[in-house]
Amino acid sequence: MAALGADAPAAAFEGRRPRVALLSTQLDMAYLLPAFAELFPEAEVCVQAALGDLRTIDAAVCWMPPRGLLARMPGLKLIQSIAAGIDHITGDPALPPVPLCRMVDTDLAASMAAYVCWAVTHRQRHMQDYVASAAAHVWQEQPVEPPGAHRVGIAGLGALGTRCALALHAIGYRVSGWSRTAKSGLPGDIALFHGESQRAAFLADCDTLVCLLPYTPETHGILDAESFARLPRGAHLINVGRGAHVVEGDLLRALDDGQLGYATLDTFTEEPLPADHPYWTHPRVLVTPHIASRTPARAIARLTRINLARVLQGNAAMVAVDPARGY
Amino acid sequence: MAALGADAPAAAFEGRRPRVALLSTQLDMAYLLPAFAELFPEAEVCVQAALGDLRTIDAAVCWMPPRGLLARMPGLKLIQSIAAGIDHITGDPALPPVPLCRMVDTDLAASMAAYVCWAVTHRQRHMQDYVASAAAHVWQEQPVEPPGAHRVGIAGLGALGTRCALALHAIGYRVSGWSRTAKSGLPGDIALFHGESQRAAFLADCDTLVCLLPYTPETHGILDAESFARLPRGAHLINVGRGAHVVEGDLLRALDDGQLGYATLDTFTEEPLPADHPYWTHPRVLVTPHIASRTPARAIARLTRINLARVLQGNAAMVAVDPARGY
Repeated sequence: MAALGADAPAAAFEGRRPRVALLSTQLDMAYLLPAFAELFPEAEVCVQAALGDLRTIDAAVCWMPPRGLLARMPGLKLIQSIAAGIDHITGDPALPPVPLCRMVDTDLAASMAAYVCWAVTHRQRHMQDYVASAAAHVWQEQPVEPPGAHRVGIAGLGALGTRCALALHAIGYRVSGWSRTAKSGLPGDIALFHGESQRAAFLADCDTLVCLLPYTPETHGILDAESFARLPRGAHLINVGRGAHVVEGDLLRALDDGQLGYATLDTFTEEPLPADHPYWTHPRVLVTPHIASRTPARAIARLTRINLARVLQGNAAMVAVDPARGY
Repeated sequence: MAALGADAPAAAFEGRRPRVALLSTQLDMAYLLPAFAELFPEAEVCVQAALGDLRTIDAAVCWMPPRGLLARMPGLKLIQSIAAGIDHITGDPALPPVPLCRMVDTDLAASMAAYVCWAVTHRQRHMQDYVASAAAHVWQEQPVEPPGAHRVGIAGLGALGTRCALALHAIGYRVSGWSRTAKSGLPGDIALFHGESQRAAFLADCDTLVCLLPYTPETHGILDAESFARLPRGAHLINVGRGAHVVEGDLLRALDDGQLGYATLDTFTEEPLPADHPYWTHPRVLVTPHIASRTPARAIARLTRINLARVLQGNAAMVAVDPARGY
């Protein structure tokens, strides 16, 4: 991502003070202010409670922005997601037709790869049992299955999925990948599948399935009873995509009847996960609070500045979303 | 390791039935019998309790063999370790001068890399806190520090250390390595240090230090107060080398005074770790029961057959130890 590291031409902001709005119905976006002050000093950055004149806002930096609000900003030139996905923005039926950009960042991919490798090994190597034995002061060995005998399938081979595939491959896991369209450029011993026609064959070979798909109408509820039935019995699901990739009732049933052996879930349709949600108490579910990857504030400020400069100068923004395919 | 996968020439065993002894004061080596029956059918394999005539034993497959026993086998042609290290054999003052071989196996390296990546991330990303929060049904975020800001140093760049370095690098950690002699062939952004003169500089840059050194007189007690003092304050030690690399009192003191933030220990001078050992109860120590890597039985049978065939035909054994350097 060297291109993203390049400094935005300061000339784009000469004689103007662009207004950037930080919008979220879920997060207090004020945590981004110091990074913007440091890395986008030309901008006047305002939080949702103090937007001032909506007509003068040039860019919106968003995580689940209030529906309908962006449409009330006639001068808007850029919508910048703080995440790899943009589904939390495109749910707005009144979304204005301005460039909409995903976040791509090497730290984001590395954080995701660290989490996914941890989650795969935590289950495959019985690390939770070792942690429990250590707490009980018991020397208790578990079977050591070599990673080369464990098949990890990555659904979604974007920047994050690709990084996870390469990291698991470097450890020595047997890795495969599935994506909407054919991919290339990965090591030859990573088996690649694509399209609906190859989905069943991909799933049949996943002792662990990692969901890193984009969230689109096509992938809504893709992790359902039919998908689970195609996995080897006792498989481990790691969902680091979106909560709505999963049909929750189907997941709980598959865990209860043993078709799925375990689920590591970092993402949910409602976050924080409600206190009475059955995931919390299920013995074969590990809930983590949407922390698999988090974009550093500085990366958000840096990419927002680069993208706004590009748009102001008539260039395409970086990592802009293709509205037709939805990511 | 394609060469090790090559079949040993069956001709080496024509007209003879080599006798292989499985020796250990610690493990019940009978677990190896099925793999030898399958992959080394030419051999007569005997366990320690039923060795028969010691003069007719051709090869000894060892994990902590009884001291003095190998010297009583005048026909011995090969000593095969079942582990990457051979210090558990060379402690025998009466060790006979026959080829002594380490185990090298892709599964061994992959198992180690999976464990080490897990251990690094378990601490660096606060995964233990997430597991505890999940058990308490609490949605509690911890800071997400990107792997690229976390420096992991690998002490020892043999087959296992190199695999760990590459896997951590593929995730996105900032990796360095230290070895006795200069190494090459690793990605350019892995900082390489070697020799005693560069040890302090190496240690100064390790937020996590992974010990994968061979165990030799030079590395005995190398993880001592002086080494710990050179690490950044609060560093994490992962010892997957040998227990005797560590000066235990120095480690406990460094943990107590905060110089070390955490220790993940898989290897101990006495195994199983005694029930009253202070490691069990220390709040900043995780004990695992020497499971970071374990050689598959089939790999041991396969390499023993290849090595004995080579020795019988007058060739050098694979992965033979250089007695002068001790590994």
